[in-house]
Amino acid sequence: MTFDLLATDGLARRGRLGTRHGAVDTPAFMPVGTRAAVKSLSPDDLREAGAQIVLSNTFHLLVRPGPDLVRELGGLHRFMSWDGPILTDSGGFQVFSLARLRTMTEEGVEFRAPTDGSAHHLSPERAIEIQHALGSDIIHPLDECLGYPATREDTERSLGLTLRWARRSLAAHRAGGSEAALFGIVQGGFHQDLRARAVAETVALGFDGYAIGGMAVGEPKPLMRDLTEVVAGALPADQPRYLMGVGKPEDLVEAVARGVDMFDCVLPTRNARNGQVFTPDGPVTLKQARWTRDPAPLQPDCPCLACRRFSRAYLRHLFMAAELLVYRLLSLHNLHFYLGLMASMRTAIAAGSFAPFRARFFERYAVAAPAEP
Amino acid sequence: MTFDLLATDGLARRGRLGTRHGAVDTPAFMPVGTRAAVKSLSPDDLREAGAQIVLSNTFHLLVRPGPDLVRELGGLHRFMSWDGPILTDSGGFQVFSLARLRTMTEEGVEFRAPTDGSAHHLSPERAIEIQHALGSDIIHPLDECLGYPATREDTERSLGLTLRWARRSLAAHRAGGSEAALFGIVQGGFHQDLRARAVAETVALGFDGYAIGGMAVGEPKPLMRDLTEVVAGALPADQPRYLMGVGKPEDLVEAVARGVDMFDCVLPTRNARNGQVFTPDGPVTLKQARWTRDPAPLQPDCPCLACRRFSRAYLRHLFMAAELLVYRLLSLHNLHFYLGLMASMRTAIAAGSFAPFRARFFERYAVAAPAEP
Repeated sequence: MTFDLLATDGLARRGRLGTRHGAVDTPAFMPVGTRAAVKSLSPDDLREAGAQIVLSNTFHLLVRPGPDLVRELGGLHRFMSWDGPILTDSGGFQVFSLARLRTMTEEGVEFRAPTDGSAHHLSPERAIEIQHALGSDIIHPLDECLGYPATREDTERSLGLTLRWARRSLAAHRAGGSEAALFGIVQGGFHQDLRARAVAETVALGFDGYAIGGMAVGEPKPLMRDLTEVVAGALPADQPRYLMGVGKPEDLVEAVARGVDMFDCVLPTRNARNGQVFTPDGPVTLKQARWTRDPAPLQPDCPCLACRRFSRAYLRHLFMAAELLVYRLLSLHNLHFYLGLMASMRTAIAAGSFAPFRARFFERYAVAAPAEP
Repeated sequence: MTFDLLATDGLARRGRLGTRHGAVDTPAFMPVGTRAAVKSLSPDDLREAGAQIVLSNTFHLLVRPGPDLVRELGGLHRFMSWDGPILTDSGGFQVFSLARLRTMTEEGVEFRAPTDGSAHHLSPERAIEIQHALGSDIIHPLDECLGYPATREDTERSLGLTLRWARRSLAAHRAGGSEAALFGIVQGGFHQDLRARAVAETVALGFDGYAIGGMAVGEPKPLMRDLTEVVAGALPADQPRYLMGVGKPEDLVEAVARGVDMFDCVLPTRNARNGQVFTPDGPVTLKQARWTRDPAPLQPDCPCLACRRFSRAYLRHLFMAAELLVYRLLSLHNLHFYLGLMASMRTAIAAGSFAPFRARFFERYAVAAPAEP
């Protein structure tokens, strides 16, 4: 994997990732294909919306259909018919949200799948082995992800484990003979000094890029922004930075302003299925009666299929009737919005006009503007 | 509306309907867009599968979103963004399946919607008025549809009502100033002489085409085939014949062999959502464990998106995981199969080779071959 930093504007960065499956312009948003499919969308839909890379979840693929089946069928790219880059997480985030269904030791974690009760095992070595079997382009080490709040003592213990697992993951990755890029995951909870220690010790191990983990787990937004700035500011300038599981459109703008290059989030597709639509004026809810007879498109200047062809009234009708077509149409629109926002940010950074872009975004987008970094 | 009979082969007919929204090659299959959407599919998907006309249900549109809203938004074509021909039924079939939720009189029928309990009224005049408001190209009179079995006495009473309603519908249609084509519906239950009387009296009223109603309501397949032959044989040769709500692939082949020109059925899309896939070797069920590791497409020679891009193993994974994408992919495939079957029949009829086509179809398709007509 290569990473070229093409331009900077303040802390914001315009770059390009090179992978075996093509290039990714950064800042980049990655649609989430949890179980080897982005919910309701085909690979052509993703391309059409402007996606260059997708994320898939190791945890979910481990449970169903299993990495051996995916490998037997030619790997994840062929399995899901997506020929662009694929990033996988390690399963850490999902496994630690299982609470009572898991037992963790220094060695790894045993868990039962909530879907079918089947028993599974994840360790740093196994997580790497699974991701090698899937054939993803960017992979991650198993880590422990704490919720908010977490005590200093718990955070120190957890960070120690994550760092020891990071070392084991690196060794397993090198032994595995894969060409995938391995990103380190920076944990460290909600204490600035522990985050700083996490960056230093993770970077010292030498990864191909760095993920900022343990964010968007219930902490206040200002704290997330501050910690993101601390971590991003301490990461190597010549390597990509990925803020895991973030976020809302305003979170993406604020994290780009703090030097983050990559994002993933289920919001554009999950909220589509709940009838929430992202627009430059903020999110709107199709359920509201005021759209019932509205002949206008969701967003007049949007090039997506939903906006080109259908009225708010029709889309609301489909949503109220739970017609399957609406989930695809709203997901397409929301991904167009997210990916278009990233493209606008890339243009603004390259032009040295990110600050006015950011101001204009918040002037129009109907959420409270956050504090300056 | 125009109808050109281009070729015949035995009783089978190759024709072409001309409507304000384009031509329809017959024998034709109409995908069902119950509530102004074919479940999980976009208008582009329908075109790509080869659809030239879609059906929508007056009953469902009356309940939600209502014909006034559809008219206000430019009519059904614009509302659902389908610029080809649209056929609507009268609501009769659905309203008579409501049983305890309706009260019928000579004037019409009062009913409560099963979805939200809202009260509605349908009469011959109201059904025509609604279909005019929707702007469909081919419309139908309100009729009474009997289930199987029905006594002779009930059938005679019901047929009388349907014929009186047919007269009122014609008058309402002429007064409405619409350019839509109005098809008559031939009822008459399961008695050959009542069916013959129904044809004669319906044709005497003078419609633009004729639907064969009251079939596929629980009667044995041989009886459906015999009655279809009786009715189709007595209908005018120079007008289109539409067998309502039919059917399975083998039913389509057998009805074309008996002179039917048009069909609609929810099976290709409904069965897709249940994981059933139609192939030239008969239907298959994706749930079966034998597809778990199968790298082949559903049907190797099929040009649909599902078959071009994905393996049976992947589609089965999506189906077992209830991933929304699979409903679209399987619906696309099943419609490709249905519409491809119609295209093959049209080619065979034009070439004078329908009999060997039909024999080959049943030789391969895994259902018992029916008796000769």
